[in-house]
Amino acid sequence: MTQRDAKIGIVGGAGPYAGLDLAQKLLQQTIAKTDQDYLPTLLISTPGLIEDRTDFLLGVNENNPADAIYNNLRDLEKLGATVAGIACNTAHAPEIRNVFLEKLKNSKSKLKLVDMISETADFLSNACPEVNIVGVLSTIGTWKAGFYPTLLEKYGFNVITLNEKEQQHLHNEALFNPLYGIKVQAYPVSAQAREALIEGVNNLKKKGAQAIILGCTEIPIGIPERVLGNTYCVDPGLVLARTLIREFCNEKLLPWNWNEK
Amino acid sequence: MTQRDAKIGIVGGAGPYAGLDLAQKLLQQTIAKTDQDYLPTLLISTPGLIEDRTDFLLGVNENNPADAIYNNLRDLEKLGATVAGIACNTAHAPEIRNVFLEKLKNSKSKLKLVDMISETADFLSNACPEVNIVGVLSTIGTWKAGFYPTLLEKYGFNVITLNEKEQQHLHNEALFNPLYGIKVQAYPVSAQAREALIEGVNNLKKKGAQAIILGCTEIPIGIPERVLGNTYCVDPGLVLARTLIREFCNEKLLPWNWNEK
Repeated sequence: MTQRDAKIGIVGGAGPYAGLDLAQKLLQQTIAKTDQDYLPTLLISTPGLIEDRTDFLLGVNENNPADAIYNNLRDLEKLGATVAGIACNTAHAPEIRNVFLEKLKNSKSKLKLVDMISETADFLSNACPEVNIVGVLSTIGTWKAGFYPTLLEKYGFNVITLNEKEQQHLHNEALFNPLYGIKVQAYPVSAQAREALIEGVNNLKKKGAQAIILGCTEIPIGIPERVLGNTYCVDPGLVLARTLIREFCNEKLLPWNWNEK
Repeated sequence: MTQRDAKIGIVGGAGPYAGLDLAQKLLQQTIAKTDQDYLPTLLISTPGLIEDRTDFLLGVNENNPADAIYNNLRDLEKLGATVAGIACNTAHAPEIRNVFLEKLKNSKSKLKLVDMISETADFLSNACPEVNIVGVLSTIGTWKAGFYPTLLEKYGFNVITLNEKEQQHLHNEALFNPLYGIKVQAYPVSAQAREALIEGVNNLKKKGAQAIILGCTEIPIGIPERVLGNTYCVDPGLVLARTLIREFCNEKLLPWNWNEK
């Protein structure tokens, strides 16, 4: 592999629309006037091989999706990826992430894997310095795993999440509803899914959240706004896209603007 | 590579949004209820290495984009692609296509490369049996290369294209305008780009077109309708997505429906 072959790698497929959403954000955050100005990218999506992340974390399924994610990362590296990201918040739970990180280390991989979760916490600290109370919306897997609160508390934030009933409602209605959840209907998002997401936002706001992390890659498809009322909506996928550009070719990164959608 | 590694390959990057659009159509045309139901896919996008297709066809640039496309196809095959498509109409001009086909043949590639143009002509024959007069909207490169009219006439269609002034206007305004063309602003498409596209459609309708081929992968981003008034709008990217699914796993292909968007 030569410098000419270097690429940004994306592990998609978890879910498939989330991988595309990250690829699209990479384009939108790139300074480009012609086709040729965009950065070289490789998106791998093997959804049938990546077990449901939440099912694994809840013990419904004992197959760790880390193995398939590791294989995806190695394949990306084979074709020239030098920096990569995983378009799935839930896959960043330590029970999953520690396994693929260990395998990557043992394989002597040179791939620079961006950690979406800590990049999101960094982003919050830098871009919203006045914020103390942060809410998190997510799948029930991420909610139970609790890695966002753990990390954000280390950064000095007070963290608010939904109660179990609210969380289950958001997960079942907005994300996994078999008729209108974002997992089956993303472009456009159904009115029902959007409504369930806004209800989640409002529940966190009532509890005092000044910023909300849209902590499942499908959620920002339903909440594309960067600010809702006076609450920041932080999309970890957008942060990940920007970090990948920064790491690969910093001069092509668009300046940040809260007013864009 | 095993059966388990088999994937659908997409050559994107020409342009980058067209590659994503094809990947999105693959998802939308798949029968799926969960993440795991979607098909394994690999999208490669090296836009900086693929010279502008129209510039090559017009002689503005003598570097044939076929070489980069061939490299992309080989890379896709290395990671398991068994069937692949190229998300660019203009790259199907014989001056480009014959070169990468020859290289593929010489390399003993086993990849099944779908031909978007002949699949589109097949689709028109099968899905619009009452249509005789077909219009084509495209880049000026595809317009000059003339491969759509040549092929469609072989299928027995009468073919209508824009005159040079209309064609140049469509190319410059809807696709390549540096401020609002779809090449720089695709989601959402600007009002100006949409207007230039609709003007193109109306010009072809006035000349009698009963069906219009949206013959540049960016055009259907601005005209997502499958029918406008009483005119069929045929999106070769959508046809390509459906053909890739058919070739890879036919039972997952959604039935065709003219009424969807």
